[in-house]
Amino acid sequence: MAAPPDPARRSARARRSILDATTALTAEVGYAAVTVEAIAARAGVGKQTIYRWWPSKGAVLFDAILDRGSDAERGTALPDTGDLRADLQAVLRAVVAELADPATDRTNRAVTAEIQADESLAGELVTRLLRPQMEATADRLDRARQVGQLAPDADVEVAVELLFGPPFHRWLLRTGPLEDEYADRLVAGVLSGLAPRAP
Amino acid sequence: MAAPPDPARRSARARRSILDATTALTAEVGYAAVTVEAIAARAGVGKQTIYRWWPSKGAVLFDAILDRGSDAERGTALPDTGDLRADLQAVLRAVVAELADPATDRTNRAVTAEIQADESLAGELVTRLLRPQMEATADRLDRARQVGQLAPDADVEVAVELLFGPPFHRWLLRTGPLEDEYADRLVAGVLSGLAPRAP
Repeated sequence: MAAPPDPARRSARARRSILDATTALTAEVGYAAVTVEAIAARAGVGKQTIYRWWPSKGAVLFDAILDRGSDAERGTALPDTGDLRADLQAVLRAVVAELADPATDRTNRAVTAEIQADESLAGELVTRLLRPQMEATADRLDRARQVGQLAPDADVEVAVELLFGPPFHRWLLRTGPLEDEYADRLVAGVLSGLAPRAP
Repeated sequence: MAAPPDPARRSARARRSILDATTALTAEVGYAAVTVEAIAARAGVGKQTIYRWWPSKGAVLFDAILDRGSDAERGTALPDTGDLRADLQAVLRAVVAELADPATDRTNRAVTAEIQADESLAGELVTRLLRPQMEATADRLDRARQVGQLAPDADVEVAVELLFGPPFHRWLLRTGPLEDEYADRLVAGVLSGLAPRAP
């Protein structure tokens, strides 16, 4: 017996198709060549369906990226096993692996290019993806500082940028490989600057 | 008495006009809207003069950026006063000030966007601008390590990325102000991780 039609489920399916089509097209032809028409055709929906939900192709692409992984994969949920080094290594290895992934490289570069000209898209990226990740990391470092695992005057805000800035810089400018070993070296470099000093 | 015509000087003048026109147009209308025709018109040269010297508008823009400052301003000549902290602060303050400068922001963002799609332009940026700056900083840190100002096992390669990655990340994603105080905090955070440990 066929299920009765369910508009919410149909909407969810259309949304999923649109996001998948956007990711696939961006990887295939590059962001500049993607059009809302092409996304609609690939997703099997009307152009007006896309414009009902998103103001621009940049906004669709951005949702496609946000939609991609779980909180853990995106680093917004930070592990807290009590072993700070291991937890930070897990986060940085995930960040580095995501940047190194050829399947998402083109999409990530398209967004990076897009936000240079589009400040509101940049703001959305920061608010929805970057800030949560950076704040979760700052909270984790702050708890470690409170229990004496880090120096009392450790600069947690700067430490977060020391962790996330370099892999992004390396990826963006293609200056070196993005591997676990690199993630671990970054964590080691940052943690040694935060360590409690001998009395 | 008029000076005799000097082709080398005329070429240099034309080159200068083209680079200035490129910077000005990019700031005015954004990189995407700049055309080689518009650069030629603004510079008062023929389009073919531009194509004789550069393969693309991206290449012209890039030379305009490289041409902008002295070695010291670009950070490729690192001060060596013997005071490592002061020298690194000087470099990082210059980097941060350059990124924060509204006069060059649009050009820098245009190049950053452009190199996401154009790998050969990215390679040129890294080879001509970024590598020299990073290597000069690595050399300075290495000398400090050799004379015992840093720990014998200090990870100099990672330290360079810890210095340059965060300001670029902050600028690119517009996550915070770019001021002297920030540069100094970065230097402090990185140096404390490199310090020789008490025996």
